[in-house]
Amino acid sequence: MLENQARIPISELGEFGLIRHLTENIQLKHENSIKGVGDDAAVIGNTADMVTVVSTDMLTEGVHFDLTYVPLKHLGYKVATVNFSDICAMNAKPKQLLISIAVSSRFPVDAIEELYSGILLACERYQVDLVGGDTTSSKSGLTISATIIGEAKKEKLTYRNGAKEKDLICVTGDLGGAYVGLLLLEREKGVFTTSEGVQPELEGNDYILERQLKPEARIDMPIIFEQIGVLPTSMIDISDGLASELMHICTQSGLGAQLYEEKIPIDPMTYDRARQFNLDPTTCALNGGEDYELLFTINADDFEKIKGNPDITVIGYMTDKNSGVNLISKSNTSHPITAQGWDAMKGSAQ
Amino acid sequence: MLENQARIPISELGEFGLIRHLTENIQLKHENSIKGVGDDAAVIGNTADMVTVVSTDMLTEGVHFDLTYVPLKHLGYKVATVNFSDICAMNAKPKQLLISIAVSSRFPVDAIEELYSGILLACERYQVDLVGGDTTSSKSGLTISATIIGEAKKEKLTYRNGAKEKDLICVTGDLGGAYVGLLLLEREKGVFTTSEGVQPELEGNDYILERQLKPEARIDMPIIFEQIGVLPTSMIDISDGLASELMHICTQSGLGAQLYEEKIPIDPMTYDRARQFNLDPTTCALNGGEDYELLFTINADDFEKIKGNPDITVIGYMTDKNSGVNLISKSNTSHPITAQGWDAMKGSAQ
Repeated sequence: MLENQARIPISELGEFGLIRHLTENIQLKHENSIKGVGDDAAVIGNTADMVTVVSTDMLTEGVHFDLTYVPLKHLGYKVATVNFSDICAMNAKPKQLLISIAVSSRFPVDAIEELYSGILLACERYQVDLVGGDTTSSKSGLTISATIIGEAKKEKLTYRNGAKEKDLICVTGDLGGAYVGLLLLEREKGVFTTSEGVQPELEGNDYILERQLKPEARIDMPIIFEQIGVLPTSMIDISDGLASELMHICTQSGLGAQLYEEKIPIDPMTYDRARQFNLDPTTCALNGGEDYELLFTINADDFEKIKGNPDITVIGYMTDKNSGVNLISKSNTSHPITAQGWDAMKGSAQ
Repeated sequence: MLENQARIPISELGEFGLIRHLTENIQLKHENSIKGVGDDAAVIGNTADMVTVVSTDMLTEGVHFDLTYVPLKHLGYKVATVNFSDICAMNAKPKQLLISIAVSSRFPVDAIEELYSGILLACERYQVDLVGGDTTSSKSGLTISATIIGEAKKEKLTYRNGAKEKDLICVTGDLGGAYVGLLLLEREKGVFTTSEGVQPELEGNDYILERQLKPEARIDMPIIFEQIGVLPTSMIDISDGLASELMHICTQSGLGAQLYEEKIPIDPMTYDRARQFNLDPTTCALNGGEDYELLFTINADDFEKIKGNPDITVIGYMTDKNSGVNLISKSNTSHPITAQGWDAMKGSAQ
């Protein structure tokens, strides 16, 4: 991919030139983005009844992304949206983004432009201002760090530790697709690198590939919660897999949970392709990660308000701590859930 | 250095375990640090008459630091203070810090603990809360990203673009020491790696070594400005060298500047060691960088308020744009200043 581009080396522009070049056309959208790129710090105006929420993420080449099959524009888009997702998981609205990159000299300016075009596209779609960052060189590879700032009314914030016994456990969208998309990309990369001239077979897999390569953040959910008059008692975004995220909610809330396998929403394409890989689709949903859907709990009294909402599925309920975290399988047997996710699954898949 | 430590591999703790381990003893100091590490985002309370300032920096091994002679605790301290410095340069107070690290498996947990002990020491001394971050693996080396959040009254903020013609140009402290300290470390590294058994000769150079390895941020200056009733018309911190930073103020303010070589404050040790390296001490002050002093401009009417202040030296004044940016040498000749700094100097020194 990189080889096809005109190779203007970064050194021709220099650090300041590159930052200026990448950020010169940015138009700030939010009134409270008082000062963006170009000074020692960005300046953000405060509103008395709102609180600031801030989250940061770091992604490294070869660990979090593989540039053999991830286009840089998609990577930029994903870096932005997965950070927006963290703010949505607080029931808050993402507003300002800072992006830092460390990049080796093998990347021409065009490649960094591609990356930024994806970041800026996500900022445009989600109405977020890119207000700062840093650009520097690295000895090898590409490392990206993103910091996202959002705001919310303090009383609307949703933490991981607020779930209560008998609360309903809900998820948005469907799960497992991003992981099966990753398996597909890894398989075709294997074919491509071992069989000369053979092109990857990716057609007809758009949904799961998009789930992996270009995930969206559930920025709609805080608005939906407001509209239907529901305030989740706890919430987290699904970056490491349903099992791992549920464990966070259980640990921090001091509770157990009971999940129903048959309730876990899985898209038909995810289901089929998982089967083709001889994998249990439920395992992909539980441990796959990177779906960036929201996992949340609500008071059982709020059930009528979410019933029939196509964006929300009830998948279980919170129990006391001593009952543990269990999955009731389709054959009606109970299995303890352990937190897998980053350590186990990602290690083998990436 | 790393070899002397008990090598507990990071994989034994896992990502979540490592974050918990590093952050479990953090006590939040600021009332507006509502939620620190442990959720999808940190939460910071707003005060109606204050604005939020935010800045981010990325540092990579082999480019920004050399672990052959930089102790990890010092590195952590420096990562924190150079970020605090960006907030001080806005005439604001640093309050919340987020740190992300990407680290290869060659680093044992003890090494990361050392790094964090330096970060936390700086946070303690500067009264800053570590409220978030990310810890992940990298294919090679150590990359650190820091995001610092501060606050200020909006009308007290100092930007780079506010200087006016005839304003006095001032600096805090003294310049060039950090660069000469770096040269010394590089020289002794060269001796150490080529001559077996020869130990580095660093004694008697404490001041310039501290300037390089453990710089402090001028967090005192916003308080001093308040006390003496001076609001700088523009301000920037000296990370890339006096010349480069002055060019930023000139470019963004649409002005020129005249500096006086004899006025540039240089510590006697910096002066002596620069001479030993056959370098012009003024060049070290102009282009060396990493001093993390503040460069600012004030209205000439405020001169009486800063006169005799041991922390502040007047080194020149702002001129119209067409006059350019010039240094009047000790022999009273005028030399145009070009922005060197990161591109030129660092490239050859590191």
